[in-house]
Amino acid sequence: MDLKDLFLDKEKYLDKKITLCGWIRNHRDQKTFGFIDFADGTCQQHLQVVYDEKLANFNEVQKLLIGSSLEVTGKVVKSQGQQDIELQAESIRLIGDCKDNYPLQAKGRPTREFLREIAYLRPRTNLFQAVFRIRSVAAMAIHEYFQSHNYLYVHTPLITTADCEGSDQMFKITTLDFNNLPMEDNVVDMKKDLFNKQAFITGTGQLHGEAFAMAFKKIYTFGPTFRTENSNTKTHANEFWMIEPEIAFCDLNGLMDIEEDMLKYVVSYVLEHCSEEIAFCDKFVEQGLKEKLEKLVSSQFTRITHHDVVDILKKAPNKWEFTPSYEDDIAKEHEKYITEYFNGPVFITNWPKDIKAWYMKLNDDNATVAAVDLEVPGAGELMGGSEREADYDKIIARAKAMNVDIDTVDWYMNLRRFGGCYHSGFGMGFERLIIYLTGVENIRDVIPFPRTPGNCEY
Amino acid sequence: MDLKDLFLDKEKYLDKKITLCGWIRNHRDQKTFGFIDFADGTCQQHLQVVYDEKLANFNEVQKLLIGSSLEVTGKVVKSQGQQDIELQAESIRLIGDCKDNYPLQAKGRPTREFLREIAYLRPRTNLFQAVFRIRSVAAMAIHEYFQSHNYLYVHTPLITTADCEGSDQMFKITTLDFNNLPMEDNVVDMKKDLFNKQAFITGTGQLHGEAFAMAFKKIYTFGPTFRTENSNTKTHANEFWMIEPEIAFCDLNGLMDIEEDMLKYVVSYVLEHCSEEIAFCDKFVEQGLKEKLEKLVSSQFTRITHHDVVDILKKAPNKWEFTPSYEDDIAKEHEKYITEYFNGPVFITNWPKDIKAWYMKLNDDNATVAAVDLEVPGAGELMGGSEREADYDKIIARAKAMNVDIDTVDWYMNLRRFGGCYHSGFGMGFERLIIYLTGVENIRDVIPFPRTPGNCEY
Repeated sequence: MDLKDLFLDKEKYLDKKITLCGWIRNHRDQKTFGFIDFADGTCQQHLQVVYDEKLANFNEVQKLLIGSSLEVTGKVVKSQGQQDIELQAESIRLIGDCKDNYPLQAKGRPTREFLREIAYLRPRTNLFQAVFRIRSVAAMAIHEYFQSHNYLYVHTPLITTADCEGSDQMFKITTLDFNNLPMEDNVVDMKKDLFNKQAFITGTGQLHGEAFAMAFKKIYTFGPTFRTENSNTKTHANEFWMIEPEIAFCDLNGLMDIEEDMLKYVVSYVLEHCSEEIAFCDKFVEQGLKEKLEKLVSSQFTRITHHDVVDILKKAPNKWEFTPSYEDDIAKEHEKYITEYFNGPVFITNWPKDIKAWYMKLNDDNATVAAVDLEVPGAGELMGGSEREADYDKIIARAKAMNVDIDTVDWYMNLRRFGGCYHSGFGMGFERLIIYLTGVENIRDVIPFPRTPGNCEY
Repeated sequence: MDLKDLFLDKEKYLDKKITLCGWIRNHRDQKTFGFIDFADGTCQQHLQVVYDEKLANFNEVQKLLIGSSLEVTGKVVKSQGQQDIELQAESIRLIGDCKDNYPLQAKGRPTREFLREIAYLRPRTNLFQAVFRIRSVAAMAIHEYFQSHNYLYVHTPLITTADCEGSDQMFKITTLDFNNLPMEDNVVDMKKDLFNKQAFITGTGQLHGEAFAMAFKKIYTFGPTFRTENSNTKTHANEFWMIEPEIAFCDLNGLMDIEEDMLKYVVSYVLEHCSEEIAFCDKFVEQGLKEKLEKLVSSQFTRITHHDVVDILKKAPNKWEFTPSYEDDIAKEHEKYITEYFNGPVFITNWPKDIKAWYMKLNDDNATVAAVDLEVPGAGELMGGSEREADYDKIIARAKAMNVDIDTVDWYMNLRRFGGCYHSGFGMGFERLIIYLTGVENIRDVIPFPRTPGNCEY
């Protein structure tokens, strides 16, 4: 059985004999008895296993090292210590021993930087147990939200030749031998590659998602995406997961309704299903985390235009590093001020067109686009979305003006000619959500095996 | 509201006024009235919209072309035709018109080959509505199965330097300019690339999954994978999705229990949640599909060794194209015979070691490995798995013998030194499952935007 099932229904198993398989997280051996801090990874809680000389292999068990895997059979009893229950061992069988150079010893708390160096072992620590369990449950919450609201889950392609975000931001892929490239007229002949042309791995499924929204009305993607950005910050990785819903017959206000509803659902779901993990992070990672999340669920998100945000920033008493401007993006310091000003999440709408993407709907003022960013206290921008330009002539003009390679996306443009409609979508970086949910600050610590410039171990 | 919600509770909406947004799938206009075959993509069913001269814009509505998007308001009434219900339109508003060169007209049934050429429009056809809805629901079923059984969903990396399946089967990725490669000693200097070395996109998450199974006991992956195979068959694509569960403290028999239980759960779930879609595929794609799926759910899967399968094949009256052999893989014709012989799904275990992967557990006979393939009637191999070699010395020896680049996977080997345990896992190609669930034969028709050699449009 799993430890999780035991802790979910302790009364049921009290005084019953059970068998568990798992690992020694800590071990205190006395002369005639011992305590094993036992975990199996199915829940945040550990179980104390008590054994004594009555074990046939008592001497052997006493010598077991931290990290070893075991099969334990025993009786669940009320504990006299801090725990509710403990296990009185009747047999303990070693399954796999652990070398004494195991880097995760009980003494000392290893730094997160050190743990990144042993990414294949760090999931065994309490912190990463909590983080990756929250990650798994949050993923499930997202699927449950969209599926229960009649959305189609669509697997948009990763390999692509379409130019959405700009091909210079995409990894090229090839089956060719770098040291023996086929040439034609002194240029590498990509026609000889597997797809007969240069292909990339993509940073977004949006364009393909829109094609499916025009068939299924409401769709979402949830998959990995890639960016070549050579940037070493806490929030950038070259591989990350993204959720990209796209909704036909939905304008910008409708989109904000969905974003708010979805986020509250996911946060509530995690609070309910990961109470132990959230309590752990609240205690050891971000004090006040639980309260922050509960507050979000009950809050009303503010909706305000970029123009009005800039007004507020200009009137603020702060000395800004970056001067707020009606034409520019807002800086991290501005995001922080605005979420504190409104004391909660803020949707900022109608951004200057020149700093936003070509597929966003141009507003009647001809100066702004119907885009929306969601700014969340303590995490900055969590989602970015827009109503899409549904007018064929307008989107062609915008794409040309922004140097998009239109030939690669003519099919996408055609969606406007064959029963197109007003529609909207957003993207949410999944890691950014996990950072928000756990309080862990660095994207490298919320991805199982992070990829950043110069780092592709494991 | 969504059409799906209307059909889920028709009684509730009878004689009520509702508003729907969606598309014209067909249109018959008479002199004083008309019928619109209306769909919104949230369910397989269409709704008949009836309108007459009382509409203010009657003349305009009469001219609406197939494919156009609409907003329709009207009363739900009992139908006198084939449908249970229809909508008596009170207002019909055109949202997006459709050019008359729209390739999906009502007349004629376009071939699947033709529809592949318009992959961005084909999801609007009844066939692809059914296929992609089943795909979405099957994905949800997989998540529900594993999450409800305490598995952790882990996002293993796509970008990797680890050699699991052989680097010649992986796409290389780069940010370098093919026509201006940095050279050192007449060789391309990959240290200048973003990760300071050659990186790939992977065909499996298994190795990373095992690292997480050693921390969380039960994990699963569900994500895209890539293979460079230059193969144009019905079952090969260069990008596809895969599910890879990995379970600590689980032997080969335990693994088969899980595979059988999971598959039955997913098939039952799809039968329950996609009854209209299955009925459609049963009628137009594979006659007897529904019965086939129901039979699977109630069947007992056979378990038999590779050796005993070969015995049966040798005794069979058939004239084989490929002679059955105790040392070789079994051919498609053998798979077919065996599933018919046992009249149901068959687990074939204990395969000759030389035709299986290096990480599989060597049996005591020193000739076979603890591998298992699941053969399913009509679909061939649906899952492949094994108990993993848990012995450090043995796996190192096997890897060396099979020319694995051990330096890239030393961390993986170390899992055997730090509290390793017997453990097992399997991979299921998601498209192969969808082929089985829909009866659609070609992998190109169950992936939204398929990538095969020479084909990377859209």
